[in-house]
Amino acid sequence: MTIILGVDPGSRITGYGVIAAEGRGWRYVDSGCIRMKTEDSLPERVLTIFQGLTQIIAQWQPTQASVEQVFLSNNADSALKLGQARGAALAALGHAGVVVAEYSARQIKQSVVGTGAADKTQVQHMVMRLLQLEQCPQADAADGLAAALCHAHASANMLKMTITGLRRGRGH
Amino acid sequence: MTIILGVDPGSRITGYGVIAAEGRGWRYVDSGCIRMKTEDSLPERVLTIFQGLTQIIAQWQPTQASVEQVFLSNNADSALKLGQARGAALAALGHAGVVVAEYSARQIKQSVVGTGAADKTQVQHMVMRLLQLEQCPQADAADGLAAALCHAHASANMLKMTITGLRRGRGH
Repeated sequence: MTIILGVDPGSRITGYGVIAAEGRGWRYVDSGCIRMKTEDSLPERVLTIFQGLTQIIAQWQPTQASVEQVFLSNNADSALKLGQARGAALAALGHAGVVVAEYSARQIKQSVVGTGAADKTQVQHMVMRLLQLEQCPQADAADGLAAALCHAHASANMLKMTITGLRRGRGH
Repeated sequence: MTIILGVDPGSRITGYGVIAAEGRGWRYVDSGCIRMKTEDSLPERVLTIFQGLTQIIAQWQPTQASVEQVFLSNNADSALKLGQARGAALAALGHAGVVVAEYSARQIKQSVVGTGAADKTQVQHMVMRLLQLEQCPQADAADGLAAALCHAHASANMLKMTITGLRRGRGH
């Protein structure tokens, strides 16, 4: 069983989702948001993300993480803010020895909803169904869970390919 | 005596400088660069900065840090990369409990060279003179040292203002 932590870093809210994956199956473990206080200084806000993720890693001991790659806006100011949040998140994951995979927003949506053009509401809805949740997770938490599910899916496919390859190898 | 760590985070090279400040005096302690390997993945590069600074903090035990604020280019891609480096650097400083101050490039140049419009070579030259170095430090390391000197200067002025204020207070 693999514990996967999905992270959606943002300059104001960082969403996260934890799932336990085994083969092609998985179950919900935890999800939520790390919120930065607008009154905090930049160093304090960055530390909030780092410490928040460090705490979540200590609690659930994930061995793998899945982080959404960034859609680049034309706004350099928001790109910088987002970059600072991502840098702190990636530092927390790396510092804790968690292996990090990155997926584009399109890949994550494709994996969870079946189309790369899905909107936020569809992602929330499918995350709820796939993980049999009774309540709809908050949008950023849903993005974290979606990133984790995408990685579970990609890993299961990779394993399947390896096994198929081994079987084919044996047949010859 | 205060140990000050100046950091100039960059998407490829992060410069740093360590000085020991006491009142209006200071001395050079250490400086250098943390270089990211271009062949490394983004999570690996971010971790290089985090671990590099963590090591420097462990070695010199600074209590205060000075980080250059960012000049925003119009390029969102480079802003994101720079943001990721800054996020990792600020996370390392905050995680180690170092108090972080931020100064604009203009403030740093004004403090070290006497004009906010100084170029890189002037900064290197003045850092070398102020710290009585025999060799010219590498450009990014010089920026790290300049940030540290700017903070030492600002702190000394703040102390002077406090003392003047106290004396004035006593006089009344």
